[in-house]
Amino acid sequence: MRRDPDPDRRVDRGGMVEITEKPSVGRRAVASGLIRLEESTVEAIKNGEVEKGDVLTVARVAAIQAVKETPRQIPMCHPIPITGVEVAFELLPDRIRATVAVTSVGKTGVEMEALSGVSAALLNVWDMVKSREKDETGNYPTTMVDEIRVVEKRKGKAGESFCPGSSSSSNGDPNGGHRRANDGSSRR
Amino acid sequence: MRRDPDPDRRVDRGGMVEITEKPSVGRRAVASGLIRLEESTVEAIKNGEVEKGDVLTVARVAAIQAVKETPRQIPMCHPIPITGVEVAFELLPDRIRATVAVTSVGKTGVEMEALSGVSAALLNVWDMVKSREKDETGNYPTTMVDEIRVVEKRKGKAGESFCPGSSSSSNGDPNGGHRRANDGSSRR
Amino acid sequence: MRRDPDPDRRVDRGGMVEITEKPSVGRRAVASGLIRLEESTVEAIKNGEVEKGDVLTVARVAAIQAVKETPRQIPMCHPIPITGVEVAFELLPDRIRATVAVTSVGKTGVEMEALSGVSAALLNVWDMVKSREKDETGNYPTTMVDEIRVVEKRKGKAGESFCPGSSSSSNGDPNGGHRRANDGSSRR
Amino acid sequence: MRRDPDPDRRVDRGGMVEITEKPSVGRRAVASGLIRLEESTVEAIKNGEVEKGDVLTVARVAAIQAVKETPRQIPMCHPIPITGVEVAFELLPDRIRATVAVTSVGKTGVEMEALSGVSAALLNVWDMVKSREKDETGNYPTTMVDEIRVVEKRKGKAGESFCPGSSSSSNGDPNGGHRRANDGSSRR
Amino acid sequence: MRRDPDPDRRVDRGGMVEITEKPSVGRRAVASGLIRLEESTVEAIKNGEVEKGDVLTVARVAAIQAVKETPRQIPMCHPIPITGVEVAFELLPDRIRATVAVTSVGKTGVEMEALSGVSAALLNVWDMVKSREKDETGNYPTTMVDEIRVVEKRKGKAGESFCPGSSSSSNGDPNGGHRRANDGSSRR
Amino acid sequence: MRRDPDPDRRVDRGGMVEITEKPSVGRRAVASGLIRLEESTVEAIKNGEVEKGDVLTVARVAAIQAVKETPRQIPMCHPIPITGVEVAFELLPDRIRATVAVTSVGKTGVEMEALSGVSAALLNVWDMVKSREKDETGNYPTTMVDEIRVVEKRKGKAGESFCPGSSSSSNGDPNGGHRRANDGSSRR
Repeated sequence: MRRDPDPDRRVDRGGMVEITEKPSVGRRAVASGLIRLEESTVEAIKNGEVEKGDVLTVARVAAIQAVKETPRQIPMCHPIPITGVEVAFELLPDRIRATVAVTSVGKTGVEMEALSGVSAALLNVWDMVKSREKDETGNYPTTMVDEIRVVEKRKGKAGESFCPGSSSSSNGDPNGGHRRANDGSSRR
Repeated sequence: MRRDPDPDRRVDRGGMVEITEKPSVGRRAVASGLIRLEESTVEAIKNGEVEKGDVLTVARVAAIQAVKETPRQIPMCHPIPITGVEVAFELLPDRIRATVAVTSVGKTGVEMEALSGVSAALLNVWDMVKSREKDETGNYPTTMVDEIRVVEKRKGKAGESFCPGSSSSSNGDPNGGHRRANDGSSRR
Repeated sequence: MRRDPDPDRRVDRGGMVEITEKPSVGRRAVASGLIRLEESTVEAIKNGEVEKGDVLTVARVAAIQAVKETPRQIPMCHPIPITGVEVAFELLPDRIRATVAVTSVGKTGVEMEALSGVSAALLNVWDMVKSREKDETGNYPTTMVDEIRVVEKRKGKAGESFCPGSSSSSNGDPNGGHRRANDGSSRR
Repeated sequence: MRRDPDPDRRVDRGGMVEITEKPSVGRRAVASGLIRLEESTVEAIKNGEVEKGDVLTVARVAAIQAVKETPRQIPMCHPIPITGVEVAFELLPDRIRATVAVTSVGKTGVEMEALSGVSAALLNVWDMVKSREKDETGNYPTTMVDEIRVVEKRKGKAGESFCPGSSSSSNGDPNGGHRRANDGSSRR
Repeated sequence: MRRDPDPDRRVDRGGMVEITEKPSVGRRAVASGLIRLEESTVEAIKNGEVEKGDVLTVARVAAIQAVKETPRQIPMCHPIPITGVEVAFELLPDRIRATVAVTSVGKTGVEMEALSGVSAALLNVWDMVKSREKDETGNYPTTMVDEIRVVEKRKGKAGESFCPGSSSSSNGDPNGGHRRANDGSSRR
Repeated sequence: MRRDPDPDRRVDRGGMVEITEKPSVGRRAVASGLIRLEESTVEAIKNGEVEKGDVLTVARVAAIQAVKETPRQIPMCHPIPITGVEVAFELLPDRIRATVAVTSVGKTGVEMEALSGVSAALLNVWDMVKSREKDETGNYPTTMVDEIRVVEKRKGKAGESFCPGSSSSSNGDPNGGHRRANDGSSRR
């Protein structure tokens, strides 16, 4: 390579973290978040009265797609072979909570994937009920996406390829969410 | 078309809202949201000490890409010719607020685009500072994405194609955000 | 440009058809197709008993996404500002027919978009019921996607921007599908 | 996680099937389908007279891309490391048959990938010959995509990573297509 | 919006350039570039002897796709309604020159689209002939992509929507490439 | 499969190279290229005076995204689990050189990924400084992307999964780039 002997040249570096030599192990992360809505909107969702269709199924499909798209939405994320996505919704009087659990067998964690899924689920709920949430000026006095967080993160030991706790600690029992990862080094 | 005279057939419908006959007018929407972080993390971002690189520039690029990807992340959204995206960050002691303003000349509003941009900006901040936010178990005791909302939405009158207020009410002055859209029919 | 005077140089050309000077007018195309299934599978879909979820809503979302992705799946297709997508399903004893209507205001027709939507709808039905359609060897003795065709295509006159017939001839009445386009020059 | 003690809350679930603990083995699936065309159109393709270019090469490229895009077009499909795609065309007097063979080493089958490839190949043939297939009204009296089906599906045994039969049973001999998968549990 | 009165807060801005109020006019840009190859490789391409298939058709399809993908590959680019793409190749003894012409009717220029197309065309030529260009160590002593530049850029006047010169100055006559744009303000 | 006994049928084949039975080993490739710019533009980049923002960070993000998008931009490329991307820039008086190093553990090389990353980095530099590089006619007398080449390619032995030389021969010392791959069979 022809090098230029210019003493002024500046080298600028950076990039996607090198994980080549990390072992592939089972991974699981669960994230959740909520969207605040008018009570009448939650009722309409419950009763299947929303004009644009089945709100929670559309949001679930969008969440699954968003999990798989994570390395495109978050540039520094590695492409990861996702092996499972579970999406759950809880309908409360004035809000809906979405919980997304993601599993993988790979070299890095999947919490960003779970967070992307939650965010997409909630934004799709919003999109489906826009006409019910707008006030007379076209704005949204109530609607807000809130409390998006990681509620659980685990990984298997090196050499194992199974995904720990993928069945016992389902995201259907979000109280289980505060259990800690079993390994402090679970870096992405 | 060969019709089947089965009396039991059931028809199921739905889809993306028809906007063919709506006029193309200037549109603008602003959304904001925040991510709660350790104070030391905000300091590190301010001082350019984050190992993975320039946090706010990466988040800004990702937000712009997410705005453009909105019709892929939100299935019922129409493809919209985006004409401008502005991304601003405010660094507060224990959190960062992202504000995204989107303009377009089109047949439907751009608030979902602005919300997608905010969500992507905040998730990318999270991704860039993961190693600073994790506790010894690999979890995130502090980090949370919060208060994602639409702070402004406007549109021009039919026949006009300019974008109202795109300069006077910049998202740099978020107090301006509570002004209402000038037209109650601003449906998407 | 430095030209090489080599007498042997060969020039090879081709590309995406030039439509710059064509007028933007309202467009509408409807396509349909069917998937042959076990009768028990159609029953299970009707009764909401399919394990993977709501088959027709997932297929509808996928069809809408496929309509928007057409210029990526079909390289010679131009990007088109889709303004509406309607997806309908008819459940017959041993098959399901999907019909997709697409509207746009643009310089070229949308029949490839409608065909892509139908194809995606049917493949997604297949994917959702795979476990019910497989025989003991893992193969699909019954399942087949068939009769994907354009059933209607229209466009407005130059100077008009509305979409003709978008309401009166809904795809819910597929008998209307054999009406011809009103303009023989409706090239893409 | 702050739980809301609302007795009315409803939990809604569903998602992408969990395959974390399934072994990675060699996989192969072959699908085929056909497009009905005017005889003069098939002749023109054979003779390289189609204005938009080399029909079969464009269709082949599009099919390969569609195979790789399958998890985006079919939301419940897992991302799969495709290791080979073979696309073949048979030109018959009034139709063209496309056959797509896909191989992978992974945790789930690749028949949806093969089906997506066939569908994309056929729709791209259609797109390339639109001007030849349209009647004076702009419609398509002859053109139809038909008989899209899985003609072969195989997988290796757990522990093996090779792909069975990838050479001996090429898709050039579609009669081989009716052989059954060697393992009834070949679920995706 | 709850404002935090922290005197230390820092605001960081930036984004995609605002073009809402620019007129939509006809646009055209042409870019070219070349790939240096072994003479035997160029011969093999000319003679249709490359194992992976028809090199120039694959490269042309990839170029067209890349033109349409430009706003995703170049984050600050606006989405643009492309109305035509023409791809030409010149085969010289030791290199191939690709020329890509892009037309649009829009608010900003299309030179980045043309450059993306050229780059994709050349990288795809490389990919198709890798086995012929590698030396015994697996490296590429000869292969190099070079001289990617904009050779022509034009736009119509505001109020006109036609595309200037789209026929008279075809990219088949690259000598025409040095003509200047007719308007110094042709900013993107 | 219903076979048609037409003696005239023609079979046309081709596709993505079969790599199912190749071992997964550590891979590394480095590519570089340069963009020629006005000296004043390089100065402005160095001094952070470019209006559109931080040129090198935007280019780095775009390069990383392009590396991951390679199988979509280059149809015959297999999807590859990228495990690291490093992007470096050298600022010389009248040009900027970009170097992209890509690592993976997979069945085929990553040189096309590295080349795609370099190309995207350079085109994004161009896009960020367009207004500084244009002359009064809107054209680019100086700007040119040049010398895109593979400067290093390595792979591990079958059975090993580590990535050879990923630390000792960093792309910060491009003189190391001329070392040959250690295995002549490193085909993709």
